[in-house]
Amino acid sequence: LILRDAVHGLVTFERDEERLVVELLDCIEVQRLRHIRQLGVASMAFPGAEHSRFAHAIGAAYVMKKLIERLRTLHEELPYWQRLTSERAQDALAAALLHDLGHGPLSHLFEDAIDGSPHHEEWTRRILLDPQTSVHQTLAKRDPSMPERVARLVHGESDLPYLARSVSGLVDVDRCDYLLRDAHATGVRYGMFDLDWLLRSLRFADHPETGAELAIDGAKGLPAIEGFVLARLFMFQQVYLHKATRSAEWMIRTALARGVRGIAEGLRIPSGGVPTALRQAALGQDPELAAYLQLGDPELILAMKAWEGSSDAGLGDLCRRVRARVLHKTYELFGSLASHDGRRFALETARTIASANGFDPELAVGCDVAEVEAFDATDTPIQVVYQKGRPRVLHEVSFVLARLANQTLERVRLIVVPEIREQVVAALQDKNQ
Amino acid sequence: LILRDAVHGLVTFERDEERLVVELLDCIEVQRLRHIRQLGVASMAFPGAEHSRFAHAIGAAYVMKKLIERLRTLHEELPYWQRLTSERAQDALAAALLHDLGHGPLSHLFEDAIDGSPHHEEWTRRILLDPQTSVHQTLAKRDPSMPERVARLVHGESDLPYLARSVSGLVDVDRCDYLLRDAHATGVRYGMFDLDWLLRSLRFADHPETGAELAIDGAKGLPAIEGFVLARLFMFQQVYLHKATRSAEWMIRTALARGVRGIAEGLRIPSGGVPTALRQAALGQDPELAAYLQLGDPELILAMKAWEGSSDAGLGDLCRRVRARVLHKTYELFGSLASHDGRRFALETARTIASANGFDPELAVGCDVAEVEAFDATDTPIQVVYQKGRPRVLHEVSFVLARLANQTLERVRLIVVPEIREQVVAALQDKNQ
Amino acid sequence: LILRDAVHGLVTFERDEERLVVELLDCIEVQRLRHIRQLGVASMAFPGAEHSRFAHAIGAAYVMKKLIERLRTLHEELPYWQRLTSERAQDALAAALLHDLGHGPLSHLFEDAIDGSPHHEEWTRRILLDPQTSVHQTLAKRDPSMPERVARLVHGESDLPYLARSVSGLVDVDRCDYLLRDAHATGVRYGMFDLDWLLRSLRFADHPETGAELAIDGAKGLPAIEGFVLARLFMFQQVYLHKATRSAEWMIRTALARGVRGIAEGLRIPSGGVPTALRQAALGQDPELAAYLQLGDPELILAMKAWEGSSDAGLGDLCRRVRARVLHKTYELFGSLASHDGRRFALETARTIASANGFDPELAVGCDVAEVEAFDATDTPIQVVYQKGRPRVLHEVSFVLARLANQTLERVRLIVVPEIREQVVAALQDKNQ
Amino acid sequence: LILRDAVHGLVTFERDEERLVVELLDCIEVQRLRHIRQLGVASMAFPGAEHSRFAHAIGAAYVMKKLIERLRTLHEELPYWQRLTSERAQDALAAALLHDLGHGPLSHLFEDAIDGSPHHEEWTRRILLDPQTSVHQTLAKRDPSMPERVARLVHGESDLPYLARSVSGLVDVDRCDYLLRDAHATGVRYGMFDLDWLLRSLRFADHPETGAELAIDGAKGLPAIEGFVLARLFMFQQVYLHKATRSAEWMIRTALARGVRGIAEGLRIPSGGVPTALRQAALGQDPELAAYLQLGDPELILAMKAWEGSSDAGLGDLCRRVRARVLHKTYELFGSLASHDGRRFALETARTIASANGFDPELAVGCDVAEVEAFDATDTPIQVVYQKGRPRVLHEVSFVLARLANQTLERVRLIVVPEIREQVVAALQDKNQ
Repeated sequence: LILRDAVHGLVTFERDEERLVVELLDCIEVQRLRHIRQLGVASMAFPGAEHSRFAHAIGAAYVMKKLIERLRTLHEELPYWQRLTSERAQDALAAALLHDLGHGPLSHLFEDAIDGSPHHEEWTRRILLDPQTSVHQTLAKRDPSMPERVARLVHGESDLPYLARSVSGLVDVDRCDYLLRDAHATGVRYGMFDLDWLLRSLRFADHPETGAELAIDGAKGLPAIEGFVLARLFMFQQVYLHKATRSAEWMIRTALARGVRGIAEGLRIPSGGVPTALRQAALGQDPELAAYLQLGDPELILAMKAWEGSSDAGLGDLCRRVRARVLHKTYELFGSLASHDGRRFALETARTIASANGFDPELAVGCDVAEVEAFDATDTPIQVVYQKGRPRVLHEVSFVLARLANQTLERVRLIVVPEIREQVVAALQDKNQ
Repeated sequence: LILRDAVHGLVTFERDEERLVVELLDCIEVQRLRHIRQLGVASMAFPGAEHSRFAHAIGAAYVMKKLIERLRTLHEELPYWQRLTSERAQDALAAALLHDLGHGPLSHLFEDAIDGSPHHEEWTRRILLDPQTSVHQTLAKRDPSMPERVARLVHGESDLPYLARSVSGLVDVDRCDYLLRDAHATGVRYGMFDLDWLLRSLRFADHPETGAELAIDGAKGLPAIEGFVLARLFMFQQVYLHKATRSAEWMIRTALARGVRGIAEGLRIPSGGVPTALRQAALGQDPELAAYLQLGDPELILAMKAWEGSSDAGLGDLCRRVRARVLHKTYELFGSLASHDGRRFALETARTIASANGFDPELAVGCDVAEVEAFDATDTPIQVVYQKGRPRVLHEVSFVLARLANQTLERVRLIVVPEIREQVVAALQDKNQ
Repeated sequence: LILRDAVHGLVTFERDEERLVVELLDCIEVQRLRHIRQLGVASMAFPGAEHSRFAHAIGAAYVMKKLIERLRTLHEELPYWQRLTSERAQDALAAALLHDLGHGPLSHLFEDAIDGSPHHEEWTRRILLDPQTSVHQTLAKRDPSMPERVARLVHGESDLPYLARSVSGLVDVDRCDYLLRDAHATGVRYGMFDLDWLLRSLRFADHPETGAELAIDGAKGLPAIEGFVLARLFMFQQVYLHKATRSAEWMIRTALARGVRGIAEGLRIPSGGVPTALRQAALGQDPELAAYLQLGDPELILAMKAWEGSSDAGLGDLCRRVRARVLHKTYELFGSLASHDGRRFALETARTIASANGFDPELAVGCDVAEVEAFDATDTPIQVVYQKGRPRVLHEVSFVLARLANQTLERVRLIVVPEIREQVVAALQDKNQ
Repeated sequence: LILRDAVHGLVTFERDEERLVVELLDCIEVQRLRHIRQLGVASMAFPGAEHSRFAHAIGAAYVMKKLIERLRTLHEELPYWQRLTSERAQDALAAALLHDLGHGPLSHLFEDAIDGSPHHEEWTRRILLDPQTSVHQTLAKRDPSMPERVARLVHGESDLPYLARSVSGLVDVDRCDYLLRDAHATGVRYGMFDLDWLLRSLRFADHPETGAELAIDGAKGLPAIEGFVLARLFMFQQVYLHKATRSAEWMIRTALARGVRGIAEGLRIPSGGVPTALRQAALGQDPELAAYLQLGDPELILAMKAWEGSSDAGLGDLCRRVRARVLHKTYELFGSLASHDGRRFALETARTIASANGFDPELAVGCDVAEVEAFDATDTPIQVVYQKGRPRVLHEVSFVLARLANQTLERVRLIVVPEIREQVVAALQDKNQ
């Protein structure tokens, strides 16, 4: 397989070992990802953000291919039993390609909106392990234990910790691809980092308990990893936590929760408005896998369009606003208003205003707290290794990362229907410093 | 309005004159374009090609803004009555933004598949002129005659020929944006050209009958226009005429035609499979505008998914293949087999094989002829102007374009269901030289 | 004037006001900059870093042109007497183009190596004010007081503080161009920032004493300025403070100092080895302007080549090493060894080893201290302005910059001739933690 | 060795086989290339074109490394004796790195200006074969016959024709690097092509007489090779044949020829004006290798600066114009004036005018004929191979290249001192259609 990719240019899966990727791409469960946008509703703020999880899945598998190539040049450093056999390489390629397999429509919104709904990680696991799926059959054909191994790897479990970390860690193939891809699609230039240099900077470090771990080459690699961490931080600040993105997400999440409740309560909904999996979830059942796999963005978009005609006028109005991109406004809270008590006060104030203006407070007003850690240095900190001298931990040797380690960026915002924004601001601005 | 665009970087519409763009973007008919992919099913061949007509519409308006800026620096050359007044600039911006407004789902496939269906240009016109639409109201609020003027401009009609040409001509804002955007999304690097340089190279040339026409600056602009023409040719060769793209398009067009016939003939179709506009078209009625505006990619995708369960097994199978991306194979015809008679012979041969293998020939076999002219030098040839000396026509002075003028690239391909490809090739290959 | 630039693409100076740039480019003193590399000897570490101060001068003038365009869209905010008249715009364009006019060969090395030598800023001033230079005459032709005004502006002095700051400040046109240009030439990707977005983010802020100052738009501009500050920090870490760059700089500075002393002391030097300005400086005279203007990289390179045959064998050897790129090795000092006393100890240790191995310690061993402040928040901190609410200072509102404000990165390195590196490391490594 | 390259990003030579590249880079004859600009005086037209042959040499070696990697994935197709052994790979890497070793200052100008002077290819051969050079010693240390083998390979001779062709052929590593590098440095965007895709598109084709030859993969590679050929054509049209470049080249060539004649005739020239190799060449001697290796751009630039003070006033004036970038003007000839007789007539006319205005016609007027073949399809045409079916020749299957095969672009220009341009144009323009 040779294809053109917007981010990586020439992408090839031509070796024997990579044939598995080609076969998996033909599976219907992977093709389904064509209809789930990677960034959910971020395209409301960044019109270009319309790429799917399918393109990202290919990209992640390609980064894994390059990572494997890099790690194999360092193989002699490892004891024989820790090396990347062809079997392990195929597990890794499959895990990279399939890591998002269970995502529901509109990215994380679906699972967030429905109480008790299994998370996408759980759905990924079910798809991998269900003997009915093409993906399972393709894996099991090679080795009956492969679906289980891949499922564990997707969740960051493996007898090779460095492999687990490359699927799910500080510098994993998922992040490596999505940061570049989201930056490319949105036009945000600060999300770029130098992938080739980063991969070249990877080394192995001994770990007393777990064996070989991924580490960074101190002589050449610091700027590469610093660039990577900052790229992630920038993408959060600019895209993932963008006020319009967050507002649209809140609206859809709120509409979904209300719609699901309505379904449970027998709300009258026009035809096409209740996909099977949604009905099952609404009724507190665990959706069947086959039904869940029928859900993509188009299904959810059309369901919400149908809800515009439901007997819940507030829900209809909210869905209509989403479709017409009439987004709720955001009002950022600072200082004491951003504290736990302050938020509650602000939210109550806004709700009262909403009610006074004839809006359903549940649909018209919310409080959105978004946060991201710049760089997690606590858990298993990534090591930096040198030709001579002992390894160091990353935030010890990096000027920039030392200052960002374990620092959390938080954004607290009221979300209010546009009609009452002025009143809400007037009521709160004196306290908001 | 300030936004990030994947292609143009910083995009702003901040001047008074550009406020219209912001208002039009808020219209529901423009928001609808978010759900229609620019390249239809090309994402089957190029996973990144998932961008919508909405992003392209913004891009085209932005190119128009830059074009207007350029033309205004040359204004003094024009007689007063030909200059770009603010009114004309707003017409032009609106036309650029709205030129694709009437597109049906999956790009051109919808209108191609339904006999007698109005073309997207006609739908654009209807949307602009219908007093019920937000777009119409937004334009008419400025000036009751504006909707009509914009509709004419979209179709390349204006009392200023240079303005008409900038909306619909060899170098128009539509092409300027989509070539760059499609190249960016697909990762095809040859589709790039230098937009800034091209705009800077634009000049006015006198035309005895029509007045000022867009022309190219001979001293600086030849490589820019050559690069533009070649970029277009490359995009056709690589993307628009790609065998997988063409096969997927044929499959969907064929499924749509069959589905529409089935609707007319009372085929049993599961719920959700017959959107109103499709039913009206199938019954030979002119679809109502409101119904047509309900159609986007999600509606058509879900309709075809419903058809998988229809009582027409062949249709169901074809729709399932599309969804699973099990594409028909292509077999390119050369020499005498590519002639009119040759194609017919090849198609008959393939049909016979299809029937013998139990396939419905109508759904299993087709002949696809794709062609593109490298560069049209006949009609009103673009002029090249010099500081001294008479203007020349482009293909007279360009080494490369002289050799490509009026040359047509043609690709003739059989399209066959994968199961019979070997047999078809075996039957035809001796004749195919 | 229209030209292609590697960094900015299409660069034009076509307006009346910009004609001055074209005339200045034709001056012999500006053409001289073609033969002075922007990054001195950094090309020893980054082969691509071969661009000249001439290309940078054009780039800086172009950024100033775009800055002026931006500021003029905000003009109405200013009192009439603070606006950017055409005269002021021309001053600014000239200052941007000419800000490096007085640079000696090999960037800063020349002035650093010769005690008492005027700095390049002083030479710039002399060239601007000397009635014999083409640059002076070109400026004075417009207005006799223009050379003086431009000279003041180059040094960051103006009655318009925002204009002064745009020539010499945190975000000045010099930095804006050289960061991008150096990144482009070296291939270092982290030096990129979004210039268009940064310019768009500029605003005016009132300042009680000085009047209007450049500020940042809080709603849109934070990532742009953060990206800019981080790009600068990255370029220092990777390029300007790179160990090979610093070593080569130390070697040339040391050779120059030794050569100059030799000239003063009557060392025998082959023909071509003593350019006039160098002889004058060596003899403690203030070099004549005409002689200084004869000095470019080629003159200094050939002088040092001539020194290879001088009667000072150590000097000859050092110059030969530079030409053959046999660089001295670096050994970074940490912890207490990096302290003031530690450095002295390390240097003495290395000198003793050098002597014991028959090397001249002055030429074989040095200590290099490099430092850069991530972001200066003390002086006149740049303000961030909002549509509503009071302005804030940058490091108050930026998550990243708050953590980097006034932080200094320091690198302390021994520089030793390769032959003794092992011995030096052996002697010091126990103390170097 | 790991380094950053402006064009290729991360460049590594880390394998055993590549260690030779690192050793060769340390040779003084390779370091000399740092002081020879790749594009000679093209920086007079494109300020960014200041990169050296040293950076290009590294780039060419890196492309060769990637080419070798690609060819080795196809190795099984070849008979054992034609495969890329490590010895052959090292020959190829050395040839790629050293192919320009013998270049004189200012690119081709030096050898063109001096009658009977050996060409740079001959100098490359001498450097490789002379036992005194570091390069020779480095190669011979591995294998005494290696210098001779590399010298042959540089000239396109090898027992493996595909290897010879990769050093000197339609798609050789020299072109692959310089097209991208020159485009990157000049900012000309049309010089870009997709190197990764092109390398991936390379295949082997059987050749009845010579054995395996490089060929193109018909299924994937056509756009890559088309893009490459067009990139080259664009770079010629825009950069290499640019009027300012050609004018500056003519001026320097003319000055060099006059200076060399003057040296032979005993012209009085200030000190520093006659480098040894130049004196030897002027006196009709074959320059000694050691003297030739002392010549770089700085030496020639300073020699010409010295000539400004020679007793030949015309020569002095011409050199001064070059330094101040006061270029002669060009006047392109068309139609019959571009014919052989027409040129002679035009040149005579201009000479007469020059004399009448007091100029030395030899220095004030010239005729410059530049030509480039778009694509040479005659010699050993490159083949296009398919999975099935016979190979075709490239211009048979490429729509674009079929139309450009063996087509020659020619530019005929008078070059005249600016003072007489108007008169020359007035005298010729009626005939120039």
